[in-house]
Amino acid sequence: MEPWADLERIRAKAPLVHNITNYVVMNTTANALLSVGASPVMAHAVEEIDEMVGIAHALVLNIGTLSEHWVESMSRAGRAARRRGIPIVLDPVGSGATRFRTSAALRLIDDAQPTVIRGNASEIRSLVLSEKGTRGVDSTRTSEESLDVAQSLARQFRCVVSMSGATDLVVDGERVLRIHNGSPLMTRVTGLGCTASALTGAFAAVNADPLQAAAHAMAVMGVAGEIAAGLSAGPGSLQVAFLDVLHSLGEPEIRARMRAGAE
Amino acid sequence: MEPWADLERIRAKAPLVHNITNYVVMNTTANALLSVGASPVMAHAVEEIDEMVGIAHALVLNIGTLSEHWVESMSRAGRAARRRGIPIVLDPVGSGATRFRTSAALRLIDDAQPTVIRGNASEIRSLVLSEKGTRGVDSTRTSEESLDVAQSLARQFRCVVSMSGATDLVVDGERVLRIHNGSPLMTRVTGLGCTASALTGAFAAVNADPLQAAAHAMAVMGVAGEIAAGLSAGPGSLQVAFLDVLHSLGEPEIRARMRAGAE
Amino acid sequence: MEPWADLERIRAKAPLVHNITNYVVMNTTANALLSVGASPVMAHAVEEIDEMVGIAHALVLNIGTLSEHWVESMSRAGRAARRRGIPIVLDPVGSGATRFRTSAALRLIDDAQPTVIRGNASEIRSLVLSEKGTRGVDSTRTSEESLDVAQSLARQFRCVVSMSGATDLVVDGERVLRIHNGSPLMTRVTGLGCTASALTGAFAAVNADPLQAAAHAMAVMGVAGEIAAGLSAGPGSLQVAFLDVLHSLGEPEIRARMRAGAE
Repeated sequence: MEPWADLERIRAKAPLVHNITNYVVMNTTANALLSVGASPVMAHAVEEIDEMVGIAHALVLNIGTLSEHWVESMSRAGRAARRRGIPIVLDPVGSGATRFRTSAALRLIDDAQPTVIRGNASEIRSLVLSEKGTRGVDSTRTSEESLDVAQSLARQFRCVVSMSGATDLVVDGERVLRIHNGSPLMTRVTGLGCTASALTGAFAAVNADPLQAAAHAMAVMGVAGEIAAGLSAGPGSLQVAFLDVLHSLGEPEIRARMRAGAE
Repeated sequence: MEPWADLERIRAKAPLVHNITNYVVMNTTANALLSVGASPVMAHAVEEIDEMVGIAHALVLNIGTLSEHWVESMSRAGRAARRRGIPIVLDPVGSGATRFRTSAALRLIDDAQPTVIRGNASEIRSLVLSEKGTRGVDSTRTSEESLDVAQSLARQFRCVVSMSGATDLVVDGERVLRIHNGSPLMTRVTGLGCTASALTGAFAAVNADPLQAAAHAMAVMGVAGEIAAGLSAGPGSLQVAFLDVLHSLGEPEIRARMRAGAE
Repeated sequence: MEPWADLERIRAKAPLVHNITNYVVMNTTANALLSVGASPVMAHAVEEIDEMVGIAHALVLNIGTLSEHWVESMSRAGRAARRRGIPIVLDPVGSGATRFRTSAALRLIDDAQPTVIRGNASEIRSLVLSEKGTRGVDSTRTSEESLDVAQSLARQFRCVVSMSGATDLVVDGERVLRIHNGSPLMTRVTGLGCTASALTGAFAAVNADPLQAAAHAMAVMGVAGEIAAGLSAGPGSLQVAFLDVLHSLGEPEIRARMRAGAE
């Protein structure tokens, strides 16, 4: 795993990442994409979806504050992105908390055939087991106990599953990559999971292997979060420092801190 | 008043606070709830309202960027929360600035029968006097001159009224609690009123006495804001420091600074 | 150019700036308006548009995350503002990226007859040349090479055009004001263009000459951004420092740094 190579490509190419995401994180995920060197665009109107997807290098769909119209737009964007062959990341925020969320996530998987599904363990489990395990948008299960479920999901939909937690697991139905970076303080900042999904879109735009791209994104998230936590007095300053660190992060810092590997 | 006891309960229980709130503050109120130790969820689609309220420990309704569909969702959520008996906080943002806002706030009071109504003096007055006193979302009146109005509102709807200002007044129709904390710099950060409402939801989730819960939330807001202002070079850093302070705030800091009492 | 005089007027009068803007920047533009001393209000429901415009001192329309209903509200607000004679600022975010955006921007120009159109070079060009030049929401052209286009737009719609870039150009069809302040780090923070538009609304509310008002807003943006960049470790802390600086900025700092002039 050499995330710094992708990071350099993102900074050189500035891929346009089209996000249809939730109201809570629009600002912070746009800022994370800018900090890492990508170009974010947020657009959800059906009237412009096809054109906007038509100039994007990756599409990120996030159901955090979903409603019927937005799911419709996400579905349309997903189908347009499939036709163009650009990578698609789906973040099934809160799937399992309500039937509406679970069924919206499953519908988007069918319509968009995402390249990467990124969520916490409860969300990933809800897509396979019809398990009502989430507590709002927080996971009640660990990643490690959900590895088999993640592999099933990856095999069933021929995609990469990136499951975040104390340890992040990135799987493609066979291979498993584990990333052990991050800080508990990150769970006290809203939307860092959504940020991970947005960054996964940027990495997938410059790396044709989605398993590697997803794992690199999680490693960069974890390392940046760790460094930022060390500079912070609490969740407020963590959010600020995280963007600063993302902007300047390079090979030496990542090499020094990354704790990741294949099974 | 011992707000630290509630604060400890929030951190131990991590109550799920369901917010249907405005676009401006979704991120910052979610972060404040996380910093204080609660679990925020933002969800507004009618298709999932009943289920989401069904797992929540408190409901916060905020009409800051209202539109017809959102008021419909808030009404439905309010009725579901009443059936479950969980505390409901209503923030009538900008009530009095337009008839649409005033009537939406009054409708939600009828439908949701909120446990606590939290607003500034102009907003509270508009609900009783049909007074057009707000200036956009800012109050043109002080809390102290509006005490009688707040008491009327509390009696009329058998709820607690938490009226923020230089001095915060929390009343239930008979008793009056005053909190004298806070900093003028807080008025230069958007959404700290909305944050007060969100925190009131978290406090009401762990304290069965809504008068105490609302007053404790205002005391924690005021003390955290004061400490943060002392650490800040302006409104930008205040917002950051406020979250940091909320996260670490404990009994000693609150005891040292809290200026509050019953009449 | 004496932007400090307008700044003092904004702080004394606290003009109410009504924004119908995009989800990404609602929080950050409200905070910038508060930091500079204005009173922001965000409201988009057709049911209250006329009343809210009726108490506002300026209207800012921004199509960043447009959809049909929101354009309808913006159109209605624009017509109400025209009837009242208050200044109107239009930010055609992403115009040129999709036909829906370009036609929405042109429709709003017709309906609202904005006092100031503020955008980057690609956006401004799309309104005159039907040029598909933007890359999402980022400009692919410089301001200087687009001066003639900006002048045409200003003449055609009898408005001021404020075109941001490494050098900001503010034109009215004849005169040209150039502002050479700012920092490249500002392009790594989302929504600073939208913030420029919001501040332009505040300046236009206190200065009857829209060319001056627009140029003063850009000078304050640029000077505050420069100072903030000097205090920052990256884009995260820039966003925070920018608000702090806006709040305290005065004549001495502006005089010392402003590099601006008429042609």
